Amino acid sequence: MATLMKALRKTQPGKGLQLEKVAVPAVGPSEVLVHVKAASICGTDLHIYGWDRWSEGRIKPPVTLGHEFCGVVERVGEEVTALKPGDFVSAEMHVNCGHCHQCRLGESHICQNLRIIGLDIDGAFAEFVKIPATNIWKLDPAIPERYAAILDPLGNAVHTVLAGPIAGQTVLVTGCGPIGLMSIAVAKACGSSTVFATETNEHRRTMAKEMGADFVLNPAAEDPVKKILEATGGTGVDALLEMSGQPAAIQQGFKALRAGGRASLLGIPTENVPLDLVQDVIFKGATVQGIYGRRMYETWVQMTALLKAGRVNLDPLFGERMDLANFEAAFAKLQNGLAGKILMYPNGLLETGTKSAAKYGTKISVGGTK
Amino acid sequence: MATLMKALRKTQPGKGLQLEKVAVPAVGPSEVLVHVKAASICGTDLHIYGWDRWSEGRIKPPVTLGHEFCGVVERVGEEVTALKPGDFVSAEMHVNCGHCHQCRLGESHICQNLRIIGLDIDGAFAEFVKIPATNIWKLDPAIPERYAAILDPLGNAVHTVLAGPIAGQTVLVTGCGPIGLMSIAVAKACGSSTVFATETNEHRRTMAKEMGADFVLNPAAEDPVKKILEATGGTGVDALLEMSGQPAAIQQGFKALRAGGRASLLGIPTENVPLDLVQDVIFKGATVQGIYGRRMYETWVQMTALLKAGRVNLDPLFGERMDLANFEAAFAKLQNGLAGKILMYPNGLLETGTKSAAKYGTKISVGGTK
Amino acid sequence: MATLMKALRKTQPGKGLQLEKVAVPAVGPSEVLVHVKAASICGTDLHIYGWDRWSEGRIKPPVTLGHEFCGVVERVGEEVTALKPGDFVSAEMHVNCGHCHQCRLGESHICQNLRIIGLDIDGAFAEFVKIPATNIWKLDPAIPERYAAILDPLGNAVHTVLAGPIAGQTVLVTGCGPIGLMSIAVAKACGSSTVFATETNEHRRTMAKEMGADFVLNPAAEDPVKKILEATGGTGVDALLEMSGQPAAIQQGFKALRAGGRASLLGIPTENVPLDLVQDVIFKGATVQGIYGRRMYETWVQMTALLKAGRVNLDPLFGERMDLANFEAAFAKLQNGLAGKILMYPNGLLETGTKSAAKYGTKISVGGTK
Amino acid sequence: MATLMKALRKTQPGKGLQLEKVAVPAVGPSEVLVHVKAASICGTDLHIYGWDRWSEGRIKPPVTLGHEFCGVVERVGEEVTALKPGDFVSAEMHVNCGHCHQCRLGESHICQNLRIIGLDIDGAFAEFVKIPATNIWKLDPAIPERYAAILDPLGNAVHTVLAGPIAGQTVLVTGCGPIGLMSIAVAKACGSSTVFATETNEHRRTMAKEMGADFVLNPAAEDPVKKILEATGGTGVDALLEMSGQPAAIQQGFKALRAGGRASLLGIPTENVPLDLVQDVIFKGATVQGIYGRRMYETWVQMTALLKAGRVNLDPLFGERMDLANFEAAFAKLQNGLAGKILMYPNGLLETGTKSAAKYGTKISVGGTK
Repeated sequence: MATLMKALRKTQPGKGLQLEKVAVPAVGPSEVLVHVKAASICGTDLHIYGWDRWSEGRIKPPVTLGHEFCGVVERVGEEVTALKPGDFVSAEMHVNCGHCHQCRLGESHICQNLRIIGLDIDGAFAEFVKIPATNIWKLDPAIPERYAAILDPLGNAVHTVLAGPIAGQTVLVTGCGPIGLMSIAVAKACGSSTVFATETNEHRRTMAKEMGADFVLNPAAEDPVKKILEATGGTGVDALLEMSGQPAAIQQGFKALRAGGRASLLGIPTENVPLDLVQDVIFKGATVQGIYGRRMYETWVQMTALLKAGRVNLDPLFGERMDLANFEAAFAKLQNGLAGKILMYPNGLLETGTKSAAKYGTKISVGGTK
Repeated sequence: MATLMKALRKTQPGKGLQLEKVAVPAVGPSEVLVHVKAASICGTDLHIYGWDRWSEGRIKPPVTLGHEFCGVVERVGEEVTALKPGDFVSAEMHVNCGHCHQCRLGESHICQNLRIIGLDIDGAFAEFVKIPATNIWKLDPAIPERYAAILDPLGNAVHTVLAGPIAGQTVLVTGCGPIGLMSIAVAKACGSSTVFATETNEHRRTMAKEMGADFVLNPAAEDPVKKILEATGGTGVDALLEMSGQPAAIQQGFKALRAGGRASLLGIPTENVPLDLVQDVIFKGATVQGIYGRRMYETWVQMTALLKAGRVNLDPLFGERMDLANFEAAFAKLQNGLAGKILMYPNGLLETGTKSAAKYGTKISVGGTK
Repeated sequence: MATLMKALRKTQPGKGLQLEKVAVPAVGPSEVLVHVKAASICGTDLHIYGWDRWSEGRIKPPVTLGHEFCGVVERVGEEVTALKPGDFVSAEMHVNCGHCHQCRLGESHICQNLRIIGLDIDGAFAEFVKIPATNIWKLDPAIPERYAAILDPLGNAVHTVLAGPIAGQTVLVTGCGPIGLMSIAVAKACGSSTVFATETNEHRRTMAKEMGADFVLNPAAEDPVKKILEATGGTGVDALLEMSGQPAAIQQGFKALRAGGRASLLGIPTENVPLDLVQDVIFKGATVQGIYGRRMYETWVQMTALLKAGRVNLDPLFGERMDLANFEAAFAKLQNGLAGKILMYPNGLLETGTKSAAKYGTKISVGGTK
Repeated sequence: MATLMKALRKTQPGKGLQLEKVAVPAVGPSEVLVHVKAASICGTDLHIYGWDRWSEGRIKPPVTLGHEFCGVVERVGEEVTALKPGDFVSAEMHVNCGHCHQCRLGESHICQNLRIIGLDIDGAFAEFVKIPATNIWKLDPAIPERYAAILDPLGNAVHTVLAGPIAGQTVLVTGCGPIGLMSIAVAKACGSSTVFATETNEHRRTMAKEMGADFVLNPAAEDPVKKILEATGGTGVDALLEMSGQPAAIQQGFKALRAGGRASLLGIPTENVPLDLVQDVIFKGATVQGIYGRRMYETWVQMTALLKAGRVNLDPLFGERMDLANFEAAFAKLQNGLAGKILMYPNGLLETGTKSAAKYGTKISVGGTK
């Protein structure tokens, strides 16, 4: 086996990324080496590419990026018994300590000593990535490779949707980025009655419709709170799934929430948000939930069950597919807000290893590498 | 308004029912009189018709039967403010006391002093029925009249399905009578991944497929436990929805349940059931739930939200429609096990008052009255 | 029976209250007339006395105040079967509509059409008060009369404490007014391991110790967040019970909350509160709950069970007892922040009708009226 | 360090146990060697000693027994970072696989591939015991050594009590063996209002009183169901904690359970139990829970929090303390049903390493070794 591999890395503080040759990682006794098939670019990767203030404080170069991916097991450590070379896998990239209070309570997604592969540890924008065996998620070959490459954000969506009751519920999704869009499809698959979505970007509003939203509203052109209250007989929605991180959207979401409803917050505001706690939370008897990552590993069980059963169609989400070498084009497209999820292929473009990739009519366009 | 009306009654102990002319009920200050559009026959009505031992102990003739129905409000008592003549309604026929321990805890479906309209009090197999205002459920006209007439058993199904997690879950429905069949459709609508159903009757197995079951098994011809364990990688199902009341089916259901799963029991066995508590409940860390009636009124909120959103197709369930006068033919068909839900019309056969009755392609055959 | 009675009323907009003679209320078919034994002054009553902006918008004079009380049933309407003259009772003073979405979901404490006896309807600062039968809470004579007079705020405390897990949990109570103090005792009675309390008022800090707090902190003199993190090994508390309504205390409470903890908010801020949603809610995976009133009637079941079993000692809370005629002295004492709960007696000072009033050594001082 | 150690073992099929010299275990990279301070005898050990049918099927000699213990870390594997020599510890002796469906769902206490140290793997009736690092539970030195030695059964009790609501609840404990007795104390510490206990053995009934039970009933002399229904106004108890495994007690427990209550089953019947599912579960809307082991590790967090806070007094439980060499005397006493929990000391009798061992007045008698 080769000892060197391509990897897309932040090699030093500052803007941009570098495609380098680095050593293929050696695996410890309870680790696994995965041959990466496809990897997807997250909004976080864009922040790190652009080297904003958050990145400066968090990222310690050099490090290989990439935390959304799928691949095939190449090699396993000597204590690993539940996995073998050839297994089709993805992975939870949040690595927990196992002994803090939260880990002991079964809340390892909010471990006090969490480290993230692709941010704190070398990630999956490379030919190979090394992962602790316990973090590997073995996949049914029925799950299409492109879906398998975006389980990280789909898990965010599933974690949010299933953080409270959903069957027969009215739902508002504020913000239709990739996770917001996925949340729409997941909520409908799980029996929500009416899904409202708010989004200022026209292209995303169109996608929200494709994902199954019943009402898609543009807060720049109409008052979403008024519309939602009208459509719900003045009651408001049972569940707010906040995906935007925008203070105005958060405040609108709370105003549209019914008394006794739940607000599940995933979007990340960049500053403190003034909340009308009395009218929007206390007198409403509302429940507000902070949502972070994916439950380890309940969320993975739930999302792969939904995918395997063909309950969720994510195809409208996919943008272009590119060889890892064309990363500059991929990042440029995303920065311009044109693309859905862009998949990058460190080991070539072919979609292999999935028997039912065509379960949903594929709409994937192939670009960048031509 | 007329002072007499037709009513289908048990007038004295013994087999059979009598169609009589009785006085239209007078309504008290907090009661409502409903003009019955359609009523459906429950298995309980068959028991009372046949006057089995349970009926002898429970029913005190004379009483008008009928506890599954829909209609239009005719008149309201002077303290009733939330309803008015012309409202399209159904009703919860379990009348709770309001002051026992369970009522105070929000568990009025298991009220210590429960009385049932159509069993203990005159019911809906009549031109008019009198109901406490608080028990009336106002319906969106978008809900088809035939669906509105079977909310009582649909509520049993929704109560059972939503008594635990369902999204992404594997489910076993043991027994495919009307409520079992409804449970299949509801479970699929609420995101269950795989639904297994067991049933010895071939006609019902066909209907189970139509309702959306992924695997329909005949326990008389194959070992359902073995099949289910194979199909779930040896793990078993997440949820057992027991609808048969048959000891053998209950025991198979528990054997097919995964460790940590939930068993929701609705079917009524006629004798004590020997359970392997150690292997099937204790070592499994299983949760077993007794399901009775419908939660008052969370279940009604959930089921009408699902129906209004068009998430559940119940059309395969319906058998024939008959004028109330043809009740003997209706009961005979049900006793022969041929029919699905038979609707009876005390005020004539027309389906009116529902704007979207044709949301699902109607398969209702009209019979009996010709 | 007398046709006129004393009542303490807001007769017109503006500061102050008036003691008047008014007609004893007539009871409707499902209502109950209660002879008031003891009534307690709430902070809300102080706001109405002082006629602040909130009062101007909410209160429509003339109205009799008083929503914390106990008494004996004097007379019942003709449809009331579960109560009879002589019953020792208190009452939930929030009157729900019974038919809105929340009422139908078993969340009548956040009914969309809620009215409050003592604010919107004539209350219990009078010789008699009229209450809907369903709102009456029948009491075991083992519960002391003084406890029975403050079930409304005790219910707030019990609702807050039991809104999430409490056994074996570390708890922070921010703000030691009467409800905060009660929360301390309730949390300890329900198995919380360590209770921290913050309060700037020295007298209240002393009472917090008497109620069972393990650590009582003065935020004006020390950094409570630092202390709490030290005492919990850096983890923070499992539960925040926010009783102050002060933005600074709310923010400190969130900083002291552990990842995965729950924040139950009851205190009413007078303005929007800027929250660090990212660090304090989202990344923490925290759950924030708005707490309003008392669950109808789960909270009443819980609190009277705890009281009857002698699990909660509220005696440190009580200040003085006064005849209703001395209301000016009572309000003055409370405005000066000197007193705990002051009980007023519209029908004379004797504590009667309770067989075990002395279960806890009484510390009640009798003053004011002499 | 010594290479040989004393160990109490089943060396071959058949009755009895053997005290042998065996090699001190070598620890792997993620394992820990613990110097055993005190170990306690479980009912399971008695079965294995007596070599009943269950033992024949389950135990594969040779194996060292013992799964209730505390000790001090002697040595750690090279990958262990959260523990160090000298740490005062106990351990969860159920070893889970980490990758089955249940482990992935956070239900590792019902892992499909569970192995138990002291049954399937060499246990703690020895000078040293080897444990996977993740199973070690680090203890606060404030917890007395004798309490630390019985966390395994205390965890059973805490798991059972906290498997549902407990604050303000009425509780029935059927069967007052050690775990039943502990459950009484835990339920009271967590705010239960009234605790009923049933037990035929007089000595255990006396202990039940000492642990805090409000009513202790002898089913051989009185009808416990009748007494409990009388004492609860005909309603029944909120929670049944079944600790006996006796069919008659299970059936009585279900009859004494209120509609809507929960039955948590831990006792192990030796045969199928005929249940009146209709009256006792279905019409009651009851919830039945199988309880196995301890939740890993929520139960450990809860129980050590309760112990550290001094909320649970277990002292009435302790019988004699003996050197491991006197194991025959210890087993004989237990077989005669005379003793509470007997502690055995493989490394000598002194209680050391606990700073607050005397928090509760110690009642431990020292016997056997004199």
